Amino acid sequence: MREASGEARNRALHAAAALIAQRAEAILEVNREEVAAAGEATPAFLDRLTLTPARIDDMAAALKSIAARPDPVGAVIAEWTRPNGLNFQRVRTPIGVIAIIYESRPNVTIDAAAIAIKAGNAAILRGGSECIRTSLLLARLFQQSLCEAGLPATALQFVETLDRAAVGALLSGLDGAIDLVIPRGGKSLVARVQKDARVAVLSHLDGICHVYLDQDADAAKAIDITVNSKMRRTGVCGAAESLLIDRAGLARLLPPVAAALRKEGCELRGDAQVRAVDAAIAPAREEDWSTEYLAPVLSIAAVDGVDGAIVHIARYGSAHTDTIVTENAAAAERFLAAVDSAIVLCNASTQFADGGEFGFGGEIGIATGRLHARGPVGVEELTTYKTLVRGAGQVRP
Amino acid sequence: MREASGEARNRALHAAAALIAQRAEAILEVNREEVAAAGEATPAFLDRLTLTPARIDDMAAALKSIAARPDPVGAVIAEWTRPNGLNFQRVRTPIGVIAIIYESRPNVTIDAAAIAIKAGNAAILRGGSECIRTSLLLARLFQQSLCEAGLPATALQFVETLDRAAVGALLSGLDGAIDLVIPRGGKSLVARVQKDARVAVLSHLDGICHVYLDQDADAAKAIDITVNSKMRRTGVCGAAESLLIDRAGLARLLPPVAAALRKEGCELRGDAQVRAVDAAIAPAREEDWSTEYLAPVLSIAAVDGVDGAIVHIARYGSAHTDTIVTENAAAAERFLAAVDSAIVLCNASTQFADGGEFGFGGEIGIATGRLHARGPVGVEELTTYKTLVRGAGQVRP
Repeated sequence: MREASGEARNRALHAAAALIAQRAEAILEVNREEVAAAGEATPAFLDRLTLTPARIDDMAAALKSIAARPDPVGAVIAEWTRPNGLNFQRVRTPIGVIAIIYESRPNVTIDAAAIAIKAGNAAILRGGSECIRTSLLLARLFQQSLCEAGLPATALQFVETLDRAAVGALLSGLDGAIDLVIPRGGKSLVARVQKDARVAVLSHLDGICHVYLDQDADAAKAIDITVNSKMRRTGVCGAAESLLIDRAGLARLLPPVAAALRKEGCELRGDAQVRAVDAAIAPAREEDWSTEYLAPVLSIAAVDGVDGAIVHIARYGSAHTDTIVTENAAAAERFLAAVDSAIVLCNASTQFADGGEFGFGGEIGIATGRLHARGPVGVEELTTYKTLVRGAGQVRP
Repeated sequence: MREASGEARNRALHAAAALIAQRAEAILEVNREEVAAAGEATPAFLDRLTLTPARIDDMAAALKSIAARPDPVGAVIAEWTRPNGLNFQRVRTPIGVIAIIYESRPNVTIDAAAIAIKAGNAAILRGGSECIRTSLLLARLFQQSLCEAGLPATALQFVETLDRAAVGALLSGLDGAIDLVIPRGGKSLVARVQKDARVAVLSHLDGICHVYLDQDADAAKAIDITVNSKMRRTGVCGAAESLLIDRAGLARLLPPVAAALRKEGCELRGDAQVRAVDAAIAPAREEDWSTEYLAPVLSIAAVDGVDGAIVHIARYGSAHTDTIVTENAAAAERFLAAVDSAIVLCNASTQFADGGEFGFGGEIGIATGRLHARGPVGVEELTTYKTLVRGAGQVRP
């Protein structure tokens, strides 16, 4: 795979898009059986499990969109020449073998395979048991596409057994055969992977994202950004969980923002100063500041200006995504510089925390660790680099 | 530290350079006592332990050289704007807290502290016991320099206890307080760190570096590069351990190269084809191909052209540093593209595998893992990044 051309890798992605469209009815049929067998699960779980014609179209579109991205392999990231004439080039290379462990969302099979293969890697997929037949069929179609493109079908492997020991084997790194593990799913899956993996992991455990309304916030933007950050989709990791309001702007900003949130059906929990302005807001407990609700619930705290917001986020945040709303450029730049999260925004919704919205053509997850990649993990983030040094006979004195 | 200015960090490095020069006699005196106490150690060990006036000058020069490098913190690595008007900036940020575990080489105290602090990090140092008083004194002087620059002295911490449990504590990550561990020293130290660390590690275990002489190699360059790669310093990780010679060039290249190596006192071990050309070469055993001698010993194998060299390196190498000697541009580019090592050279010595030679102003080690950094780990490699997103009220549809 390391020597496969970018053109061949793109051919495989286009072939997979065509094959998935062509075999849509067979995929939907297997999926219907598995959804039926899942029985009385939660609506959210069934929603993730279920494929529809529109979702099949989305998978095919994602494949084409990822194929359309520039080829990262071989790209020169940096180049310099030393006084002794040696020319140095840092060039991107594939990471190697990436294991992706995910829950019962069959479309992740295609997203994960496409992003890993686009970057020249091999991938080993372990999907959730409730839709393993759907995922396996999708993986088989992808393998067939690799063959059609003249690439080894084994560059994509799918773990067929439901035995949980298989996850342990992947996390062990299989004697150095696996270079990176990416868990994609809920907190218990990610926590297990972070705890047990003996190889590098890209992941995030929590998405405790904050919206900070500065005293110089525009009220209309404050309302729009807060409501969108919290309510557009409450179950995604980039959804806001805490609203921080500058004390100096509390009386002006809280009433219209709280009204807009209530209108959308959001439950509000506030500290004493917030409740002094709006007594209908329930009291927040200490644990609310570090809770990822993933639901229409929002904690609200009053803070002492941008520095108060920075301190609160450093204490309770999860280094995922935080935004400031302000018309004050100095406050904005102070927040952007001092908040040490993977994604820091100004006057924009936290729900832009997404590889597609970054223009990556897709993502395999969001990383909040500090090494290798922070934020959305797309095609480039699944590469590493090596340094090429070209000389004319130089030896070291 | 994250908000300390680059100017203040540089001031600390310059203050440390001045203080070390000023206190040179006191440093040398403590060091003399420790060298005397070390008793009958190997010459190489005593050499690493011993400071001299010249080495003190080197430490001061390294501090100034690192201070002179551009400030990586806040540097914009990439910038783009999306159709919705959101502006994205990837900016470098410090990693956080870096633990550096090293052996009895007091000068590493200063190199490690300087590189970590230059990149805006805090560092925890654990040095070898035989020169712990020398290292502690150097660390205290560095802390004093941090104070003089208006930075917290605690940004550099030195583990004073000799209790080995302290290493275990650092490797545990101290409940998330440590972001990265860098071991600098021999194989047993690195192996322990790689095995036990529960946080990210940048390191290399082996430096099994190859020189490949292509049939189109210039004989003079082949001799110079082979001798320099092996013999300039045999104890460094970038020293060549195996020489691969294209079968088609064996009769032409082996005799002069072997003669030059023997003249420098290098022991040669070859495979059957090599010994058919030069029967005075001792037979190599299978384990020679994967042995890091760190001594004047070289294994020599005949290979089938550049592809044979690529296969041999993939099988026996350690992904550290490998070089090709050839006048054939196609062979050179094939080797550079297909050898998947941290550093791949053409017509240059493997001993250029060094952060100083890369122009980094210094290095804290060489990494052969595949994530975050490959090759010399300098100031930039001790940073991570975050993404700043500037909007004008955008919400996600």
